[in-house]
Amino acid sequence: MSKKTAFTSRAKISGAIEETNLFAPNFGADGLIPAAATDAASGRLLMLAYMNEEALARTIETGEAWYWSRSRNELWRKGATSGHRQRVVEIRVDCDQDALELVVEQTGPACHTKRRSCFYRRIEKDGNAVKLVFED
Amino acid sequence: MSKKTAFTSRAKISGAIEETNLFAPNFGADGLIPAAATDAASGRLLMLAYMNEEALARTIETGEAWYWSRSRNELWRKGATSGHRQRVVEIRVDCDQDALELVVEQTGPACHTKRRSCFYRRIEKDGNAVKLVFED
Repeated sequence: MSKKTAFTSRAKISGAIEETNLFAPNFGADGLIPAAATDAASGRLLMLAYMNEEALARTIETGEAWYWSRSRNELWRKGATSGHRQRVVEIRVDCDQDALELVVEQTGPACHTKRRSCFYRRIEKDGNAVKLVFED
Repeated sequence: MSKKTAFTSRAKISGAIEETNLFAPNFGADGLIPAAATDAASGRLLMLAYMNEEALARTIETGEAWYWSRSRNELWRKGATSGHRQRVVEIRVDCDQDALELVVEQTGPACHTKRRSCFYRRIEKDGNAVKLVFED
């Protein structure tokens, strides 16, 4: 790791994981934890990505969002090439400590398609089939 | 499946997955896709859970949120025991079609700990360590 940001081992949590104030994120069998980025201003869900330990440590240390790219198999600072960075206002963890929320100030669009959010299509039922409707 | 809600096979998408109006969700190697539930009224992130094909089909057919429980290894209708159901207002899919957003009307608290959202703790830096602060 870049510095020594220590997470607590889950084995060390004696009581309920839901009620501890120790941060013991569950990185799962593949070493990753999902992180949902939400917009600090609007509250809107922007994207869902994954972090490994190193990405999370760098995010905490730098205040900018780092992820693990499953397709490229590499650490990735959000906006490193596009300039569309995320300044992290808050990091939240869920009850079971197996998912994170990053509350961010997003520079430019969050999505690599240049839409504000990655969730720009909604499902519409069409008989037994479903289609997608674009709605930014 | 309960009825025949057909999703498109990803192999049938000829153009960019980001720009198609065909719904071809990627259930991953474990057969699951992550689904972030957000509150229709406030926009707030409520929880992150997983769906298999059957859970997604039932959600689309019934308009109520069904998930796949990884800990219990079973289909699970949200609120079946607690009464804290989710009426699904919209289902959105992200650019790569490997994550879903469920915009829901939540009855009661979303979290099994009876908090409104599962993300009721935020990280606070404490030197090189981090601790959790409760903040519903």
